[in-house]
Amino acid sequence: LKAHLIFTGTELLLGQIVNTNAQYLASKLAELGIDLYSMVTVGDNRGRIAEAIKAAQGKSELIIINGGLGPTEDDVTREALADALDLELKETPQALEVCTRYFKKRGLPMPEANRKLGLVPLGGMVLDNACGTAPGILLRHDDTIYVLLPGPPNELTAMFEKEVIPYLQKEGKLSSEIKSRVLKVVGLGEPVVEEKVKDLIGSSNPTLAPTVKMGEVHLRITAKSADPADNQAMLDEMEQKIRERLGDYIFGVDDCTLEEAVGRELKKLKYTIAMAESCTGGLLTHRLTNIPGSSGYVQLGAVTYANRWKTRLLHVGPEILAAHGAVSPETARAMAVGIRELTGADIAIGITGIAGPGGATETKPVGLVYIGLDYLGKVEVFKHQFVGERKTIKYLSSQAALTHLWQRLKQYK
Amino acid sequence: LKAHLIFTGTELLLGQIVNTNAQYLASKLAELGIDLYSMVTVGDNRGRIAEAIKAAQGKSELIIINGGLGPTEDDVTREALADALDLELKETPQALEVCTRYFKKRGLPMPEANRKLGLVPLGGMVLDNACGTAPGILLRHDDTIYVLLPGPPNELTAMFEKEVIPYLQKEGKLSSEIKSRVLKVVGLGEPVVEEKVKDLIGSSNPTLAPTVKMGEVHLRITAKSADPADNQAMLDEMEQKIRERLGDYIFGVDDCTLEEAVGRELKKLKYTIAMAESCTGGLLTHRLTNIPGSSGYVQLGAVTYANRWKTRLLHVGPEILAAHGAVSPETARAMAVGIRELTGADIAIGITGIAGPGGATETKPVGLVYIGLDYLGKVEVFKHQFVGERKTIKYLSSQAALTHLWQRLKQYK
Repeated sequence: LKAHLIFTGTELLLGQIVNTNAQYLASKLAELGIDLYSMVTVGDNRGRIAEAIKAAQGKSELIIINGGLGPTEDDVTREALADALDLELKETPQALEVCTRYFKKRGLPMPEANRKLGLVPLGGMVLDNACGTAPGILLRHDDTIYVLLPGPPNELTAMFEKEVIPYLQKEGKLSSEIKSRVLKVVGLGEPVVEEKVKDLIGSSNPTLAPTVKMGEVHLRITAKSADPADNQAMLDEMEQKIRERLGDYIFGVDDCTLEEAVGRELKKLKYTIAMAESCTGGLLTHRLTNIPGSSGYVQLGAVTYANRWKTRLLHVGPEILAAHGAVSPETARAMAVGIRELTGADIAIGITGIAGPGGATETKPVGLVYIGLDYLGKVEVFKHQFVGERKTIKYLSSQAALTHLWQRLKQYK
Repeated sequence: LKAHLIFTGTELLLGQIVNTNAQYLASKLAELGIDLYSMVTVGDNRGRIAEAIKAAQGKSELIIINGGLGPTEDDVTREALADALDLELKETPQALEVCTRYFKKRGLPMPEANRKLGLVPLGGMVLDNACGTAPGILLRHDDTIYVLLPGPPNELTAMFEKEVIPYLQKEGKLSSEIKSRVLKVVGLGEPVVEEKVKDLIGSSNPTLAPTVKMGEVHLRITAKSADPADNQAMLDEMEQKIRERLGDYIFGVDDCTLEEAVGRELKKLKYTIAMAESCTGGLLTHRLTNIPGSSGYVQLGAVTYANRWKTRLLHVGPEILAAHGAVSPETARAMAVGIRELTGADIAIGITGIAGPGGATETKPVGLVYIGLDYLGKVEVFKHQFVGERKTIKYLSSQAALTHLWQRLKQYK
């Protein structure tokens, strides 16, 4: 099956928004084993949309048109499709029902302008919209499948997944399916990870591709087969092989974040945690508390930006600050030990560094960060030198802290 | 001037990356007053790229082709342009110079594969690449300007701004320029803001368009004129009118963030600040410390997730927690007062609420948030009911806290 995508929207041509729908649809088609031939973006103009549809005819068996299904005058995709195929538009109860249901649920009267959402080119099938008012349309004409999908991303994804994919499956249009799985690694650099799986990277099905992302290495496994069970088996087998080599350096799969993985381990081990942050300014605690249920293990986070709070709250000795400075391994250690003693948490982290752009000295450049980890009384300090702007250094520091913690959680249990 | 954009890249058709270059180029063309007719994305295929070029001919006077200028076999845009226009490719010293200079600077030998970067269709002009190896190409042919630009975003933007815009200016192709300015409002809902500037929204040049974004209302002023000084004057005049109506509800212009605006005021007034966060989990302190120089006013941030830390550190009376619960106006007030007393900061904020998805009770739903503000001893508590997932509620809570603080900073000075 060959496909062609048409996006409508003057806001796209004016560069007011990024077309994330394009990536979504393209990646979904790739997963389904459908060959995407090209993509076109045109403005909200009936003639130009019809022209774009005609230009795609004969080259693709699946033409998806995204956007322009709303109630405003700018929304003319239905009309353009009818023009391009020389079909009549007809008010269709099923289509109107999608729209009226939306308003009924909210106890609101349907605006008269929305009546046009009930129009469907003759022969067209109505696609339900689980999240909005505009029904989609699927139309088979001269061996080509035309699909009209709404612009709002949540409506688009729901309709594509609940309506379009099942239709293509039922009609036997999906010859092979592509499935991906991402294994996420921390604590090893990309060259080391690549070296360990070098032979697997040569595999053709499933394929294996490493990418680097803000302190993590992601290994994407992609399998292609007509049989979903085959895909599953290929992904499982490759994952198994990789796990044998990388073990606990793999913290998660697909959408799992490092803070989620760390939280899961803390919960499992029934450990509590406390953080003393300086250069990360609360970001580490923010990331940990992004995880639902984190109130079960997060005891206290203290952002001790000023030196006197390092002393007053965390009992970092003034002689340590005087002798070594706030950005030093000694201070990082004292911060971790201090907040652990204060809170009685099982694990404590202290972070101090120079996020920049100011604050550097001759011996302490921007990006120099020390991380102290007090793990049930066993204390370590890690030194890092990051490069980037302030927010990047804050993020990489929080990432490094989570990485050290993850490694110790897996090592000591 | 009418323009057409062609993007090449199989990774785009596979949905592996989002095409941010499309938004960049589209917005730049809009700024320059160039009418973008349509955009097309095709794979790294010589025939299809040539076909896309031919399809655009006659409809646009400016055809920009982005991507496919590198040294690999996939990179065939130069060849496709030569095919489409039936021109010969010739090795050109100026083009080769861009590439060799890059390697020379780094003391590296130029790989032989890069030799093809010196090829230019006959009659083509070489565009310098300030950030990479691949020269761009500009070619006038049959009243059409063809421009080939590299795919990496930093190379694209540098080349477009340093090479393409000056060329179009010099050739008198820019009849009018479009300039935008965004005024950012907090503390007023969108309907109220719209009501206050309703008559200005009707203006045709400059135009005024409001949008809502996570607790802020953005007013975008857009002016169009052949004379840049005219644009400047139109933007200034409209800004002035809006400021007369919205005054201190406007916290910033263009890229200015609320935390930056708050930080600027704190610095100006020489005030220090301390935060006691519960449901925001450190996000408020993280946002404030994202601003360079924030160590000058941020005293201490305490994430007191567990109740006993509200009591032990902030001296929130156990009787308050017992009688009203951790999520209550009384607790929010006591947290703010507590951290201000602890730190001696001029201003203190206490936030407590239910970020969800768990933790709700019959009387306290997910999204219920109380914000206490102790401003030089004057204490207020604000109640909010937010809707959304955990991260959204955390963000909107931090946003509300910054909004209340901003309003008081402008009001009390």
